[in-house]
Amino acid sequence: MSLIVQKFGGTSVATVERIEAVAEKIIGFRQQGHDVVVVVSAMSGETNRLISLANEVQKQPTARELDVLVSTGEQVTTALLCMALHERQHKAKSYNGSQVRILTDDAHTKARIQKIDDEHIHSDLRDGCVVVVAGFQGVDEQGNITTLGRGGSDTTAVALAAALKADECQIYTDVDGVYTTDPRVVDGARRLDRITFEEMLEMASQGSKVLQIRSVEFAGKYKVPLRVLSSFVDGPGTLITLEDDHTMEAPIVSGIAFNRDEAKLTILGVPDQPGVAAKVLGAISDENIEVDVIVQNIAEDKTTDLTFTVHRNDMVQAESTLRQVSEELGAREVKTDDKIAKISIVGVGMRSHAGIASRMFSTLADLSINIQLITTSEIKISVVVEEKYLELAVRGLHSAFDLEGAP
Amino acid sequence: MSLIVQKFGGTSVATVERIEAVAEKIIGFRQQGHDVVVVVSAMSGETNRLISLANEVQKQPTARELDVLVSTGEQVTTALLCMALHERQHKAKSYNGSQVRILTDDAHTKARIQKIDDEHIHSDLRDGCVVVVAGFQGVDEQGNITTLGRGGSDTTAVALAAALKADECQIYTDVDGVYTTDPRVVDGARRLDRITFEEMLEMASQGSKVLQIRSVEFAGKYKVPLRVLSSFVDGPGTLITLEDDHTMEAPIVSGIAFNRDEAKLTILGVPDQPGVAAKVLGAISDENIEVDVIVQNIAEDKTTDLTFTVHRNDMVQAESTLRQVSEELGAREVKTDDKIAKISIVGVGMRSHAGIASRMFSTLADLSINIQLITTSEIKISVVVEEKYLELAVRGLHSAFDLEGAP
Repeated sequence: MSLIVQKFGGTSVATVERIEAVAEKIIGFRQQGHDVVVVVSAMSGETNRLISLANEVQKQPTARELDVLVSTGEQVTTALLCMALHERQHKAKSYNGSQVRILTDDAHTKARIQKIDDEHIHSDLRDGCVVVVAGFQGVDEQGNITTLGRGGSDTTAVALAAALKADECQIYTDVDGVYTTDPRVVDGARRLDRITFEEMLEMASQGSKVLQIRSVEFAGKYKVPLRVLSSFVDGPGTLITLEDDHTMEAPIVSGIAFNRDEAKLTILGVPDQPGVAAKVLGAISDENIEVDVIVQNIAEDKTTDLTFTVHRNDMVQAESTLRQVSEELGAREVKTDDKIAKISIVGVGMRSHAGIASRMFSTLADLSINIQLITTSEIKISVVVEEKYLELAVRGLHSAFDLEGAP
Repeated sequence: MSLIVQKFGGTSVATVERIEAVAEKIIGFRQQGHDVVVVVSAMSGETNRLISLANEVQKQPTARELDVLVSTGEQVTTALLCMALHERQHKAKSYNGSQVRILTDDAHTKARIQKIDDEHIHSDLRDGCVVVVAGFQGVDEQGNITTLGRGGSDTTAVALAAALKADECQIYTDVDGVYTTDPRVVDGARRLDRITFEEMLEMASQGSKVLQIRSVEFAGKYKVPLRVLSSFVDGPGTLITLEDDHTMEAPIVSGIAFNRDEAKLTILGVPDQPGVAAKVLGAISDENIEVDVIVQNIAEDKTTDLTFTVHRNDMVQAESTLRQVSEELGAREVKTDDKIAKISIVGVGMRSHAGIASRMFSTLADLSINIQLITTSEIKISVVVEEKYLELAVRGLHSAFDLEGAP
């Protein structure tokens, strides 16, 4: 008998019928003898409904009151799921963030979990109860309701699994696992049986939206085995583990992630002096714009070029900031481009294999795709290319790294 | 400067526009220098929406979870009202029942308030905040969410007013006060400037639905001046006071209440022995059926007749129970009638005036209305008549007791 924490997202509890299906799934696990703690999101659409009410009332809704408002969404789901379990003669008890209690800091709408009291939950589990916890929310030291930000229910699940020392944390979504790449782009995309936390982090940060990145970090930090499964189709899903599987030769590349949300900005002919990069990126960061890829090449003629990417929605503002900085620094030119795509190959196997980068670049060259930017980390290589080549590049790389075959 | 507790019901906060109107009203009071604590209900329709979700999931929703579910309705309103006040540059802070905290017993869906912590509220008031509290809900000793039952927001407001020693508790509704009788029945029905708690209790229990009866009892017990006003039309409303107004001659009759929700059951020819009434009414009460009027006439020929009224929805079940009891007791016959109406004249002035009953009866006689049952209390006389005479009787009595003139 083991203890499992299961998280069901908004689409999994979108209707009464789906909540009932979730109840049946939980009962299946109970009948296998497992203890089950369930974390639920708000019914799909509910959070948006509440937020749009808030926006009607206040131009910039007060963060404290926004948390009071939207936290009701998950509370509703907990009650309905318990009722569905009761209707099926199973013991169940709901908890909101304050009742657990899930103590957070006081950063409303983006609070961080500090401590979880597990006393009530353990006592209910001993009593044969399914414990149903409202995801996404907590309470600060002063008793104010806080929320963890969008997607925070994943974080609640992982944090609970860590606090309860659960044997596994299962995240139910509308996909049946983590894929080598997006199946909508590559027909032969294959579900991975397992992936390491590091790889998952890189995949997530590169646009694979299966899991909230914070919950993956959290799970890695607290060594909580995490599994991504489908709410709608039975199957083993993908297990996210601390170590890559030593029982078999790890594949070199685990997956290919990509996104087309970014725009590229370049400042050309900047005097090559210490502090220039800091000055440029500091100005962008002061505008609360997040920067992703940053590339600076070696200096020629005592000037250098600096390129970085930001979210497309931030491009206009970033450009205006950059033009000011450019004038101050006496740079030659500012260029922008929002017709780009970023493609990354990810895999812990890269660490011990040479020649991965060159295989990536030659694959793209064979397809006549020009590479605009390159950045690398220990387990990832990312390139920026013209957006129109995205599908072509991803399909070519998926095939070049043999991702379609059995692992 | 005084402290006012204001309660806004579901129709007063039914839309974003109405919530904004409530905010404006509150600001008006703040600008007069008053401290304001506001109690709100769920937006009209929301509680029913949640309950019907519950009924879809569980045939008889678990009381604990039903409270978790429906209590979210008021919480949503508190947040939106605070946002509307913030948008207008006024300080405001929301509290749910658990945050205040409003301690109740653990009788889910019909909990009773035991204690209110007023510490946070006093401190916020000192800080210049409007305090917005979710009505209808509390928390038990174990931290479970409880609700006070339908209409419980009135009770929350009165209990808060008592705990805070507020100068007045204002209940905003969709009517502009308490009337001498229902204006839909009598054109000349007049708003009362004031009414005593006792009268209000009798009016409420006799079908005048302006206030929840429990909140009136509560206000009377804790001597909280209660005022009923309209959310939509400015005006003084009706003040419900502990004492009738000694500065003027109190009217003999303050109002006429009526209802047509009841059905009459009679058991005829019961042996006139001690314990018979207890046996009959005990059997009814065992079925959880509430009995209103009970009349037993003097015995003739060693048998007696017993008549009582129940809610119309309970008549079929009450009749079946009564037939069983009738057989056991060897009674002659059981009769039922659901085409009845009950009409009551209410007034503290009755205490010191003779002849009120006879004026009531002769008014009805002049209209050729036969009286089926009569019961009296110190400040009320009720009669049961055939339902079709209801409007005729109420109009005749309203006129006979001069309720249309100025007080």
